[in-house]
This record gives sequence, C-alpha cells and structure tokens, in this order.
Amino acid sequence: MTSLLLSRRDLSFLLHEWLHVEELTKRPRYAEHDRETFDAALELSETIATRHFAPHNKKNDAREPTFDGERVHIIPEVSEALKVFAESGLTGAGMDEAVGGMQLPRVVTDACFAWFQAANAGTSAYPFLTVGNANLLLAHGSAEQIDRYVRPMVDGRYFGTMCLSEPQAGSSLADVRTRAERAEDGTYRLFGNKMWISGGDHELSENIVHLVLARIPGGPPGVKGLSLFVVPKYLVGDDGARGERNDVVLAGLNHKMGFRGTTNTLLNFGEGTHRPSGAPGAVGHLVGEEHRGLAYMFHMMNEARIGVGLGATALGYTGYLHALDYARTRPQGRPLTDRDPVAPQVPIIEHADVRRMLLAQKSYVEGALALTLYCGRLVDEQRTAPEDEARKRAGLLLDILTPIAKSWPSQWCLEANSLAIQVHGGYGYTREYDVEQFYRDNRLNPIHEGTHGIHGLDLLGRKAVIDGGAALRLLLGEAAATADRAGAGGGVLAEYGAALNAATRRVAEVTARLWSTGDPGTALANASVYLEAVGHVVVAWMWLEQLLAADGATGDFYEGKRAAGQYFFRHELPSVHPKFDLLESLDRTAADMDPAQF
Amino acid sequence: MTSLLLSRRDLSFLLHEWLHVEELTKRPRYAEHDRETFDAALELSETIATRHFAPHNKKNDAREPTFDGERVHIIPEVSEALKVFAESGLTGAGMDEAVGGMQLPRVVTDACFAWFQAANAGTSAYPFLTVGNANLLLAHGSAEQIDRYVRPMVDGRYFGTMCLSEPQAGSSLADVRTRAERAEDGTYRLFGNKMWISGGDHELSENIVHLVLARIPGGPPGVKGLSLFVVPKYLVGDDGARGERNDVVLAGLNHKMGFRGTTNTLLNFGEGTHRPSGAPGAVGHLVGEEHRGLAYMFHMMNEARIGVGLGATALGYTGYLHALDYARTRPQGRPLTDRDPVAPQVPIIEHADVRRMLLAQKSYVEGALALTLYCGRLVDEQRTAPEDEARKRAGLLLDILTPIAKSWPSQWCLEANSLAIQVHGGYGYTREYDVEQFYRDNRLNPIHEGTHGIHGLDLLGRKAVIDGGAALRLLLGEAAATADRAGAGGGVLAEYGAALNAATRRVAEVTARLWSTGDPGTALANASVYLEAVGHVVVAWMWLEQLLAADGATGDFYEGKRAAGQYFFRHELPSVHPKFDLLESLDRTAADMDPAQF
Repeated sequence: MTSLLLSRRDLSFLLHEWLHVEELTKRPRYAEHDRETFDAALELSETIATRHFAPHNKKNDAREPTFDGERVHIIPEVSEALKVFAESGLTGAGMDEAVGGMQLPRVVTDACFAWFQAANAGTSAYPFLTVGNANLLLAHGSAEQIDRYVRPMVDGRYFGTMCLSEPQAGSSLADVRTRAERAEDGTYRLFGNKMWISGGDHELSENIVHLVLARIPGGPPGVKGLSLFVVPKYLVGDDGARGERNDVVLAGLNHKMGFRGTTNTLLNFGEGTHRPSGAPGAVGHLVGEEHRGLAYMFHMMNEARIGVGLGATALGYTGYLHALDYARTRPQGRPLTDRDPVAPQVPIIEHADVRRMLLAQKSYVEGALALTLYCGRLVDEQRTAPEDEARKRAGLLLDILTPIAKSWPSQWCLEANSLAIQVHGGYGYTREYDVEQFYRDNRLNPIHEGTHGIHGLDLLGRKAVIDGGAALRLLLGEAAATADRAGAGGGVLAEYGAALNAATRRVAEVTARLWSTGDPGTALANASVYLEAVGHVVVAWMWLEQLLAADGATGDFYEGKRAAGQYFFRHELPSVHPKFDLLESLDRTAADMDPAQF
Repeated sequence: MTSLLLSRRDLSFLLHEWLHVEELTKRPRYAEHDRETFDAALELSETIATRHFAPHNKKNDAREPTFDGERVHIIPEVSEALKVFAESGLTGAGMDEAVGGMQLPRVVTDACFAWFQAANAGTSAYPFLTVGNANLLLAHGSAEQIDRYVRPMVDGRYFGTMCLSEPQAGSSLADVRTRAERAEDGTYRLFGNKMWISGGDHELSENIVHLVLARIPGGPPGVKGLSLFVVPKYLVGDDGARGERNDVVLAGLNHKMGFRGTTNTLLNFGEGTHRPSGAPGAVGHLVGEEHRGLAYMFHMMNEARIGVGLGATALGYTGYLHALDYARTRPQGRPLTDRDPVAPQVPIIEHADVRRMLLAQKSYVEGALALTLYCGRLVDEQRTAPEDEARKRAGLLLDILTPIAKSWPSQWCLEANSLAIQVHGGYGYTREYDVEQFYRDNRLNPIHEGTHGIHGLDLLGRKAVIDGGAALRLLLGEAAATADRAGAGGGVLAEYGAALNAATRRVAEVTARLWSTGDPGTALANASVYLEAVGHVVVAWMWLEQLLAADGATGDFYEGKRAAGQYFFRHELPSVHPKFDLLESLDRTAADMDPAQF
C-alpha cells in the first residue's frame, strides 16, 4: 500500500537523483556510510512513523494532555511510541559517533524526521526538541554538560526544551526578565516565568533538560545581557544519577487550536515549590560564557526554524496524499461534456478543478520539501565541504534561506492543508477525516520560532543587506545559474529559466530600491510582502532544479514533476510581479496609517 | 464600550451614507417605516446579539451538541437565546405584515442578522435557516402550508431546515435518491437518507419543518426529476396542533472542526422507526408542482448563499475588531528607529507589519460587508423598484453577483481570521482567546451552499454567458460608471478609477477569450481562478463606491476608509492581472493532467 504520510519515491528522487547525497560518503565524517545505510535509516523512520506514531495522532488530538495540578496526563501511546523511537537510536541520528550517534548527514536525518512529523506532529515534537537541545550543548556546552545531559538525551532517557519566551516577551527577547543569580557553589539560581514552552512538563522521560535564557544581574540591558543556562527538572549528581527535584514548576498548560499532542506550558522558575539544597531558586548551570546566551540559542533556533519549515512541509505533504487518495476514490458528478444523469458518477479527480487543487498542493509541498532538504544539504556542506570557500558559501546561503525555509512552507503548506479539506468537501470539515487536524496543527507554524513578520524583517532588514548584500547576491547568482542551465536546453525549461531570471533580477532591483532611501521605516514597511515574493522566487528556483534533475526521464513520476513544475511557473510565480511593483513604489500605506483611524 | 462584534459606525455609513436605505420608505412596501424604525431594528439586534448570543459562543464550541441515541443535548443558553430572538419578532423581520412580519427591507434585515452571525455563528444558524425555509414557503407554498408551517416559524415555535444533500449526492444533486411515493390520502411518503442537514434535530423548538428534495418514481432522471416536500418532524393537524411523530429519524451527528454549535445531522426518512398512521414512509406534502423542486429550492439557496457570504463577513469582521483591540493594548517590542531596550515597550499597533495585517483585514471585511449589503439592496430593488426595467436590472445583477457574494467573503474573511490569529501571536492560537474559533467556524463557508469550485463554474459557465452575457455586461457597466465618476474628481480617486476601468475591461476580454474556443473544457479549466479574479475586481468596485460616498468627509472614520481603500487598490487589486494573463493563455495544466501522474 502506498503511504499517505510522504512519498518514498519523491524522497528518493530528491536525495539521490537531485542532491546526490551518496557523494557525501566520500567525506571523512560520513565515510562509514553508503547509500544502503542512508536508505536503511529512511526505511526505519518510515516504519516506526507508520506503525507507532500515525495510529495515535487523532487520539492525542481528541484527548489532549491534561494537568491535574500535580502531574500531566498523556495517553499511553505517546510514551510507547517515544520508547520505540529512542530504542531505534534515531535521537542521535545526526550526532557524532563519539556521543553515541549515527553520524548521518543532516539532509538524511531531515528526511528521516519528516516521516515522523507527517505521522504525528504532536508526538514527534518531543524528540525533535530534544535533538535541537542536545545539538546546542554539543556545540557550546562543556564536556561535563555533554556527559551529564546529552548522553541521556541520545539514549532517549532525558528530553529537552528551549525556554526563551515569557508572558511579556515573545517576539521581543530584549524584554526577557528571568534572572539568574550567581550562587556560592558555582551554579546560578534562576527566578522567573517562561511561556509557550513546548514539552515543558510531562512524565514521558526520566528528566527534562531546559535550556533557559536569563539575565545575570549587572549585565547589559536588552538581548546583549542574556545568558544561557541548563536547568534540569531533576538535579543530576556527579555519578549521573537523578537527584532531587529542581525548582521548576508547571504553572499550567496552554490549550491550543491544534498541535494538541505536545504539551505547551507556562513554567515558573524559583518560586520555592521544590526548593533544592543551598540558595533559593532553580539551579542552573551556565552554558559557555555569560551574556552570550542569545548567540548560542541562535544555534538551536536556526536549526529549529528549518525544522519548523520541514514540519509544515510534512503536514502539507500528508494532507496532499490524503486528498489525492480521496479524490481517486470518491465518486461525485460527471464530466462537463457528459451530463447524462443515469451514467455512473466519476471519481472527483476527473474534475479539472479538483486536479487544480491537487496540483497546487503538489507544487507547494514538493517545492517546500525540496527547499528544506536543500537547506539540510547546505548544513552538511557548511560542515564537511573540503574547501573553506565552499563551507563559507554554504553558510551564507543557509543564512539567507533560513527565514524563507521557515516561512514559505508555513504559509503555503497550510494553504495546501486548506485545499486538502476543500477536496474532501463537507467530509473534510469533520473530525471523522484527518485533514482538518493537519490544518489546525499547521496553523501554528507561521507563529512559533519567529512569526512571519519577524522573518520578513530578518530577511530584508538583515540577511539581504549584511556584508554589502553578499548572501543575497550569492543566492540570486545560484538561481540565475540554474536558470541559465535551463535556458541552454531550450523548450519549456528555457521558458521557465527566462521567467526565473526575470524574477531574480527584480529581487535585486527591488532590494536596492528599498534601501535606496536610507530610511529603514520605508524600506521595511512591507517586509512581509518582500518575504513572500522572494519566497516564491526561491521555490521557483527549487522547482527548476527538480525539473532539470528530471529532464529526459520518462514515466508517470517524472511527468507528474513536470506538471507540478508547470503549475508553479504558470499559476504561482507570476504573482510575484505585482508584489515587486508595490515594493518598488515604496508604498507606505501601512506605515503611515494612524492607529486612531482604524 | 465599543462593540467587538461589528462596527455600528460602519453599518450606519454603508446603509445611510452610501446605500441611502431611507429612500426605500418612499415605496409602498416600506411606507410604514422610517429611519428610526430601521435603526431601532439594528439596535435591537445588536443588543440581543451582545447580551444573549455572544456570551455562550465559546461554551457552545467547547461543549458541542451530543446525541445519546434518543435525544440531542445542547447547552441551555442556546434555547434561552433563541427564545429571546423569537420574542423580539426578528424571525419575521423581512416578512409581510400579513403573516406577522415587520416588512423591513432585506438590506436592513441582513445588517440586523449580521450582528447575530458575528456574535455566535452556531446559535444563529437555527433562526436563519428557519427564515430561509419560511421565505421559500411564502413564495411557493400553498396558503394552507403557510398557515400551518410558516406562522409557527414566524412565532419562533417551529424551526426549519433544508434537506438537499445525501451521502452520495453533495455537489451532484442529480444523484439525489430519496424517493417520494404518492399515498392515497394525497400526501407523499418519503424514503431515503439526507446528509449534512444543519439543525436537522434538536429539542430547541416544538417542531422542525424539513424542506426535502426527493424523487417521485416515474419522473425524469437527474435534477429535472426532483420535487420539493414539507416533511415536519411532528405531523400538524388541521387545527394546527402538533400531532404524532413523523418517520424522520436522527441517524447521527457530524463532528465538525468548527461551527460546532449548530447540530449537523444525518437524517433517515421512512425507516419505520416512528411510523405514522396510513402508508409507511415519512409523511410529506408537495410544495408547488411535481418535478419543479430544484427551481423552488434555488429560491432558498440563492438567499442562503448571500447569507453564507454575510456570515463569513461577520466572522471576519468580529475577528478584525478583536485583533484591533488586542493590537492597541498588547505591548511588545519597540520602534525600528528606537531600539533602546530600557525604553518601555510599545503597543504592537505601532509596528508597520501589524498595521498591514489590520489594514488587510479591514479591507477584506469592510469590502465584503459592502458587497453583501449591496446584494441585499438589490433584493429590495428587484422586489420594489417602481419601474419594470429597474427590477429586471437588479435581478440580473443579483444573479451574477451571487456566486461572488458567497465565495469572496468565504475566502477572504477566512484569511482575515487567519491574520487576526497572527496579530495575537501565540495567544491567538490558544482557546483562551476567541479568534481561533472564528477561523475554525469560517472554514466551513467555502464548502457549504455550493463549494468554491461550484461557484466558479456557476459564474463563468452560466452567469457570465446567459442571455449573451447580458448580466456580465451590466455588472461591468456599473463598475465602469463608478470608475468614471471617480475619474471626474481627479486625484487618487481618478487613479483608482483608472485601475478599476482597466480591470473591468480585462474581465470582458478574458471572458470573451475563454469562450472563443467553443470548448467548455478549456473555458472552464480554471473557473475558480476566474471567480477569484473577478471577485477582486468587484470588491475593488465596492471600495471605490465607498470612497466616493466618503469623499470630502473628514475625521478618523473617513480617513480609515480611505486608508483601507488605498490598501485594497495598491496591495490587492493588482494581483488580478497575473490571473487574467493565465486565463487568457487558455492554460490547461490542470485539465490535461493525467490522474495517474500525481
């Protein structure tokens, strides 16, 4: 039976026929691997996701976690699934062998993790937060912190969180108030409230490792005064044994529209409920140096942002496959040209408008998957390319693509989920079918890990201009090179290449025009529109890359790629031009609006 | 306190300053009314909606109706609210005085009903379905049927439904199978299953009057063989007393993503569970003539379609007002030009991107409200204009505007609800706030009363071409006349007028081009894209109408109108041109896609 989670065929195309991941095995870090080990990890992921994660996805939505004031109650299937995940070793799939990992390339582990995100966004959030947490500590923690916290996370005994937001500080991390006081024993004692902490409390693991941004008194104000701390739910002794309860207390669960399977919490630090020995406050251990917390956290956030894009993609992808399956089997109506009411009804996939909705979904989810895996490939390149220059280029590209890889799938794979409901008609609006949950789950993605608006400012206000616009030039140069390759072949690919070239030129012109005024208020007034337009150009590039990789190949799979690419180039890419026109006009409609006039 | 449901100021502007509803009182039908009685009905609606409907909106979502196999259980607040509504006489607000109605113009009753839809989409569906049902019987039922069923509906004792869909027949009414056999006593006996019946069972009223499409054996196949029947839940005696139970049985409730406050049911007719005297089957009374059922039902459906557009608008509007209120009070971050972290945070409405999201919502919801009220005004014109020609013109315009008035608000006011969540950030994604429910409720609207795709086919395949395209010419002529009026004044209005004129010309050209091939498969391949593009042109016209009505007036309200109009003309209207380009190219990407290639 074909999976309704992701397409194994498409993953194989992207990883092997397009991104040539096997070539990575020539590099020392991945030398122990070959195509078989990559494919085995993917197959293992598909199997566990299908057997242990997908079956309770709906149940964990309908019976979301509850808090009785003492403990969090979660349906038992979650714990069982996470045990299987931990035992598979996939937590450490991308980590060094030295810490018990499999040392797989990021692009492969991303593809592995997408199976779980497609199967069950709520349950898979626990291990993925843990992986992000562990990777941060591997990069910036001490050897002792790695021993004490990362190893049990790799084993699946401890889970991790990231604690940034507070009730008064969401997008504005400068306003984080949680304070960390130096104690005599070398630890810090934390006091404050953290909001929106996913996986912030539960009984799923032996311990929870919180990574907490807090302010050491006397430091500079704003983000420059933030330091990063490891704050475990239970203290861990020198022998690695779980010790007394730390003063981290669950104040309550947030009740969400979707993504209900992941506990989302308000945590209180240092309120005295569980007072450990020594000074009052929750015991925290400084990661790295004081006041460098945000820089360390960005390590995790950048990874998490691409992870959000990948999760949005996975939800969009599974919704598309569900809609496709429904469209092939649901009889309704007759062809436009043959309305004989006594003829049998045809499957709705025979209606052009249903095919249009399926093609739109296909173009969004396959475009988004290509983009997010391309970013994973860049991480590998940044980490293992033999030449300095290649590593630097990969880093620059990754930098400028991150806001797009987070935001574009969050916007368009949500739209894909809406179309999946629409294909199902009234049935899609009921909880008897799966697609309404995908839509609710996916609505989170434009909000967390930096809202859509924040990424617009990040792209246009920072990434597009740093180093004199080097990253943007590099990105546009890469897209133009693809367009030129397509142009060389003639035919429809040349047509798409010309369209992509025209669009990339406009990105450069519009960016220059926006910053020509020297006034950030004018330049950034429509930063979200810029993000959306550039996002469409980037995904058009990803589509052209795929079409080039598929060029000359025959069969249904490749014809489908060509049709979806055609859809993107004809129905989607042209929408960027009115957006660029607007940006070029330096429109200030929103910027100039007097709040009293709403 | 300002209402968070709708804007009384905006309604007053639209009704009095733009649509000049007071002029209707010069016509015999409305001669008993004056501005005071109109305003009194609106104020009554606002008061009841605010005090009795809004307070239980969230509770009725969290504790949706349940069915224990015998009865449907609904929280008591629903029944209490509906009692107040019935006692207010608003059920008959638009009906003739002769049947106990208030004989108010449709445009006024639409505005009244919008208050309820904004306050509580779930609870207000019961009376609005009842009004539609009663209006159909007033138009096509016998005097006896009006006496027996409509009068108790006007009194609020009986509620009504419309029973069209069946499990195998949603969009395709040709496939309705429910059969109605003539009985010896002059009644019909019905057998079959009806799906998606809103308000199909409950204990909220003494009786439920189902209007049921069914097939009399021996009639023609397809939609031409459908007849319409009144099938009450309880039979009604000649004296009007409620008699024995009819054989209409609730088979189950559908569990929806949103709109949970309205029961949505699968009903079985004639299964023998409650067998009334005489022949087996559910007792039904023919409305009008045999085999003309669909034509009668369209009376109700056209009204219901504009009602869906109005409901989508109301949900979008209340979401916008909630987002505006939040944006004015939530402090977060600092201006781009002043990042001093020790300065206090500013309300998020100070950020350009938040203002952009609010302006987008304002432009969608106020544009949609103008469109739906304009349609209400056309109903009044069609019914009461002194000249035959004016009535005919109004009918034609209404015909072609109906698919747009249904679909455009369903698409864009849902988008407004998504933006309202986005303005709230993480809080908007929780059930502690109201906006996530609006978004879930509104997602129904592109599906019921004809899906988005069906309305695309209706607009391009029927409304735009019947009578040689007379309705479309009339519509474009009206828009062009507005554009010319705007052009005469110069300035920014002339600029918008030119843009609207250019867009209306393209509608005409594209329509001609699409039908130039003579091949419906090609013409209709992208009918949904056509619907969306023409919808944006129509709403641009509605915006220009509003800007002309506001021209010369000063103060925050009018400046706000001008800003939202500017937003629509700069950010939204230009998006139609790539869509028209696509249509002009006779693109067949979706039409030609081989289903095997997905």
